[in-house]
Amino acid sequence: MSGASMLALNAFDPDGAAALDPVERALVERRAAVFGGAVPLFYDRPLNIVRAEGVWLYDHENRRYLDAYNNVPVVGHCHPHVVQAIATQAARLNTHTRYLSEVVIGYAERLLATFPAPLARVLFTTTGTEGIDLALRLSRVRTGRSGVIVTRFAYHGHSVAAAEITPAFGSGVGLGAHVRTVAAPVAGARPEDVGPAFARAVAQAIADLERQGTPLGALVLDSVLSSDGLFVDPPGYLAEAVAQARAAGGLFVADEVQPGFGRTGAGMWGFTRHGLVPDIVVMGKPMGNGMPIGAVVTHADILADFAARTGYFNTFGGNTVSCAAAAAVLDVIEGEGLIASAQKVGAHLKAGFTQLQAGLPCIGAVRGAGLYVAVDLVQRDDPAAPDTALARRLINGLRERQILISTCGPAGNVLKIRPPLPFSTANADQLLQATGELLAGSA
Amino acid sequence: MSGASMLALNAFDPDGAAALDPVERALVERRAAVFGGAVPLFYDRPLNIVRAEGVWLYDHENRRYLDAYNNVPVVGHCHPHVVQAIATQAARLNTHTRYLSEVVIGYAERLLATFPAPLARVLFTTTGTEGIDLALRLSRVRTGRSGVIVTRFAYHGHSVAAAEITPAFGSGVGLGAHVRTVAAPVAGARPEDVGPAFARAVAQAIADLERQGTPLGALVLDSVLSSDGLFVDPPGYLAEAVAQARAAGGLFVADEVQPGFGRTGAGMWGFTRHGLVPDIVVMGKPMGNGMPIGAVVTHADILADFAARTGYFNTFGGNTVSCAAAAAVLDVIEGEGLIASAQKVGAHLKAGFTQLQAGLPCIGAVRGAGLYVAVDLVQRDDPAAPDTALARRLINGLRERQILISTCGPAGNVLKIRPPLPFSTANADQLLQATGELLAGSA
Repeated sequence: MSGASMLALNAFDPDGAAALDPVERALVERRAAVFGGAVPLFYDRPLNIVRAEGVWLYDHENRRYLDAYNNVPVVGHCHPHVVQAIATQAARLNTHTRYLSEVVIGYAERLLATFPAPLARVLFTTTGTEGIDLALRLSRVRTGRSGVIVTRFAYHGHSVAAAEITPAFGSGVGLGAHVRTVAAPVAGARPEDVGPAFARAVAQAIADLERQGTPLGALVLDSVLSSDGLFVDPPGYLAEAVAQARAAGGLFVADEVQPGFGRTGAGMWGFTRHGLVPDIVVMGKPMGNGMPIGAVVTHADILADFAARTGYFNTFGGNTVSCAAAAAVLDVIEGEGLIASAQKVGAHLKAGFTQLQAGLPCIGAVRGAGLYVAVDLVQRDDPAAPDTALARRLINGLRERQILISTCGPAGNVLKIRPPLPFSTANADQLLQATGELLAGSA
Repeated sequence: MSGASMLALNAFDPDGAAALDPVERALVERRAAVFGGAVPLFYDRPLNIVRAEGVWLYDHENRRYLDAYNNVPVVGHCHPHVVQAIATQAARLNTHTRYLSEVVIGYAERLLATFPAPLARVLFTTTGTEGIDLALRLSRVRTGRSGVIVTRFAYHGHSVAAAEITPAFGSGVGLGAHVRTVAAPVAGARPEDVGPAFARAVAQAIADLERQGTPLGALVLDSVLSSDGLFVDPPGYLAEAVAQARAAGGLFVADEVQPGFGRTGAGMWGFTRHGLVPDIVVMGKPMGNGMPIGAVVTHADILADFAARTGYFNTFGGNTVSCAAAAAVLDVIEGEGLIASAQKVGAHLKAGFTQLQAGLPCIGAVRGAGLYVAVDLVQRDDPAAPDTALARRLINGLRERQILISTCGPAGNVLKIRPPLPFSTANADQLLQATGELLAGSA
């Protein structure tokens, strides 16, 4: 399935509807009647989820599923502190940023305090896609250039402009003529080769954009290369490429929708693992633990250039309820020590998969940073060949054992393990044991 | 200020900070430090709003302001039924559309039931901007064409693609080369001339797009022409232009972000006032009474074309809490008879302004549909000349009397009156009396 769309990864095939129970089958049919098959649904046997708590999702028969996939509920599903903040604020006031509000301004100050000094201004959006889209507008105004470099299977959003820089949509959605892609690092490359190889690819893309008359405006990178299959090491490997982009007149836009808010266990933001300070940072998904909110954080002068040309107003962006939820998320990340926990449990999980790898030739590589772990499944007789079918069997096998993960990477053979941050060592052990048993049975 | 940006309409001038009380001044300064002056703030003396209820906003000194402006809280600020739905659902589950969910599917079915039959499919977005952006993607896939026609001061959103079809941003943000604008109707034109004149303008734009090699893909219209200054009559005047667009191979995209959810008092959707059935409908702002949610509703075959090429997943789009809030909004619109009320109170308001007009030469025209009313302020000695300064004085004067409205139209001289739908006849009378007194004093 190389070259396929990330929308197809781990998707339900409607031909499998006969295997469902009556409640599930009825919902699948009603869903198809309203969404027309355009919206992907997870798993061979889709889940009907009715409630959730912490790292657990529950279906209509009160079966409980361990959530090792969802990063939006970063502090855990329905965290009582966040739920209380939402309920209280929704009953008091929910409005926009054209009035003054301590809730909104106070949250903006707290958020900005988590960034290194030059990153001193914020614009609230409602989603990460809107953030990427706005970052492209800021970058075009600042540099006067439209050229963009992204990684080869990057996902940056679903608006027209974000889709133009999202190769993960596959061949059905064209990349912009102003966009070039660079390969993610090769699994198993020597650490000292990773940064130089990535920088060479970026240099070639810069030269190519210049030859085509659309010089580089922005190098847009998810600092964990999530959609490409998660390439996080060695820390710092992105720095040389970023320096080259800047030398060529481009900005470095960090897409922190995936690594942000402590996921990597190495601080709040993924870019710090690389010793970098971006020109523009985009964040989204986990920011409000499910309440829609995103943001663009940038330098004062980049925003000033934009403000001199136009302004920014986003009806739901920075609404009072979303800001109250987002402030509660910061409370919990700090109060429950979730970044340290992500570091500890993530290391345990990675070590566990590395141990499994020793006895299972179908595990080609294990990568990870904090509570984002990727495991390559490969053909037993050819470790360079992805085993997409095995990955699909495994995630559906785990789903039958009531553990939820997904896949990533261009071939769909990379296990994507990205739980809410309260995921514990015991939760990790449950996932490791089930994975080990299923792979031993399949191998 | 003709040609200025809609972002500048009714905006606070930071030079006025000295006139503020210490609480307001401190917030204005802290806000400037985080947003860098890029995000507009309303009124010469900005409001610090801390709570709200129904049609009332309250500041930090518990002063109460009559809200005749905000359309997002369509069923009233902090409506208890919606607040309860948010609180209950936020405590139970907030997740995405890749699992089955009765809450999400059930709401989709209820929403679709409000549309005429060919409009049978929905995609949930998080915002109206994302909806417009997605409508452009659907339309390009369906027609294979990128040409777009919009009205001359239209606002359709802030993403790269939405901004390209948003002349209301002014000269700082370029329209796309594939975009043509058509003039809104002329205030005071004979009713029988309005439709033909608009259709002629659209025909010319179609021809121009064809000559430039970017034939029409979509005619995108807000059926009340909100940003252009609100042109609603005679009902049906858009039909001829829409027929021409279709004859030329384009789709009709109805931007219902403003008129939708009962505002016009003539049913749920603005396009029905014109006897039209769109190919694609976009909605947003009022849909969740402040909980971020938007949608695109379209024909099964238009969505099937898109699904054959790619799919659609939007992390927060159709999240469980937003759908629960949106379902509660439908409950209240139906249960409290808000569409009929909008019709009745809107007619009262329009009649009241028409009465004021008789004695006040500064009122050039009064227009409206339901609880969306526009009043042109003009020079006493030249009814064709907008009086932008008077409009600005008036809305700031009303703010001092604790009544909130804004302005619209390319010259910023059109009073924009667009309250939450529970706005009563007594609320209307309070606004009419204050406006009459202020204009009599100014005139």
